[in-house]
Amino acid sequence: MRDFSSDHSALALNTASLGHNLEGHGAGWEPERLIDACAARGFGSMVFWRREIGSRAIEIGERARAAGLSVAGLCRTPFLVGTDAVDRQTVIDGAKASVDMAAGLGAAVLTIVVGGVHPGTKGISESLKIVADRIGAISPYALERNVKLALEPLNPVYAGNRSCLATLRDAVDLCDVVAASNLGVAIDVYHVWWDRDLDSQLQRAGKDRIFGYHLCDWLADTRDVLLDRGMMGDGVADLKAIRASVEGAGYTGPCEVEVFSANNWWKRDPGEVLDVMVERFRALC
Amino acid sequence: MRDFSSDHSALALNTASLGHNLEGHGAGWEPERLIDACAARGFGSMVFWRREIGSRAIEIGERARAAGLSVAGLCRTPFLVGTDAVDRQTVIDGAKASVDMAAGLGAAVLTIVVGGVHPGTKGISESLKIVADRIGAISPYALERNVKLALEPLNPVYAGNRSCLATLRDAVDLCDVVAASNLGVAIDVYHVWWDRDLDSQLQRAGKDRIFGYHLCDWLADTRDVLLDRGMMGDGVADLKAIRASVEGAGYTGPCEVEVFSANNWWKRDPGEVLDVMVERFRALC
Repeated sequence: MRDFSSDHSALALNTASLGHNLEGHGAGWEPERLIDACAARGFGSMVFWRREIGSRAIEIGERARAAGLSVAGLCRTPFLVGTDAVDRQTVIDGAKASVDMAAGLGAAVLTIVVGGVHPGTKGISESLKIVADRIGAISPYALERNVKLALEPLNPVYAGNRSCLATLRDAVDLCDVVAASNLGVAIDVYHVWWDRDLDSQLQRAGKDRIFGYHLCDWLADTRDVLLDRGMMGDGVADLKAIRASVEGAGYTGPCEVEVFSANNWWKRDPGEVLDVMVERFRALC
Repeated sequence: MRDFSSDHSALALNTASLGHNLEGHGAGWEPERLIDACAARGFGSMVFWRREIGSRAIEIGERARAAGLSVAGLCRTPFLVGTDAVDRQTVIDGAKASVDMAAGLGAAVLTIVVGGVHPGTKGISESLKIVADRIGAISPYALERNVKLALEPLNPVYAGNRSCLATLRDAVDLCDVVAASNLGVAIDVYHVWWDRDLDSQLQRAGKDRIFGYHLCDWLADTRDVLLDRGMMGDGVADLKAIRASVEGAGYTGPCEVEVFSANNWWKRDPGEVLDVMVERFRALC
């Protein structure tokens, strides 16, 4: 297991941690200012969201690299299934546009959150079949542009309307079904911390299909399942044990801090938040 | 699979569905009035909560049976682990008092919701070991009083503070560890609907360890994870498929409707709610 206590170059900022992505949250720092702030603190990489990038993908990617940072990823494709993703061609076109943005940015990985239960169906199995079909149509396009696609299973609490893909087991099953060389998974502490099947599914995924590892913490008394994530150390997730499993399966990539926290971290100065991330990462992760 | 379209004698009311259990919710019907209302509609059994029973366990149990209903269960032991369940002897004493109440009531089953992550630990594994120890101390006492103990895994969203037991797999593991003949599981649609491992874990549990099946629905856009459950048919759970799995594993017992719904069903007249339950149960479950 890597030792981060004296080297945090594996640390990545997911810009969502600074509240950029919802009206009225965060300090509104532009990507350039965030890049400089991360570089100054020794972060190794960054992960952006589409809304921050707009038509400036190439420019922002180059700016990050000039500052010594890599772009670890882009969040994320629009939903592939669910009430807002009914028309197949619209979904595929939207996903391809996200692939183009990731390629322009030079992002290693494009994250996929698949969307909720598809209209007219019950349970998750039918929705997952539709997801498989749609990813099958997208993955060759991404492969040509050198973009990896990371399926991120979300906590089952979101299975109704955000991600019918609710476990790592189902994500690896989906990888097996689609069988594309650029399709893998991302593991997020928030979504998997409770799952005792995690270690065996990580082994099953293997190092060539683990494309990302996301850090935060699960607060015991979570007040809002979307916007009340904890900073590492403030919750009940066993961060060391989870990373041991992830690295035990061969992962050696960035550790990306993604804390959605409307009433705590998003209200603080971004510079302070980044400082805390570095400190917690070195001490606790 | 049983056909309920013309016979709903398997239908059980969990009284929580009428909002009894929180200040200011529900019509405040006493157990006797609920018993009569269920009997009049052909329910086969009822499940009560401790707070409704107080010192009247024997009286209420006899009253239910006199009306032609059985008492399918009692909710529930106090938490066995977590911040409110630190002292082992206090926990064991509280659970034994619940067993006494279940025995007095003539309830077939006492439900266990285990509680959240134990203080001083991270993740769920250590907490589950403590749960195993404490159930091991309780189960002989329950066996002597002819009370079955049903471990109910809750949706992982509650793993921090209500149930570190988050999957049926972990519940069956716990049964295996404790190895008491009166220890089994209860399956609640709300908690397991997203789990594609459900069928195989039900098979693993087997008919002699499935002590309960709880009905409601998962609303796609759930607004409150505790008090916004859906009535059967209003959500995205595949109710028929889940029951097929439960009965495929040999279960032939009651189907217990448990809908916590502060802003919808708890605001309606209990008689109307019971009528809807019968209708939905016959048509959709």
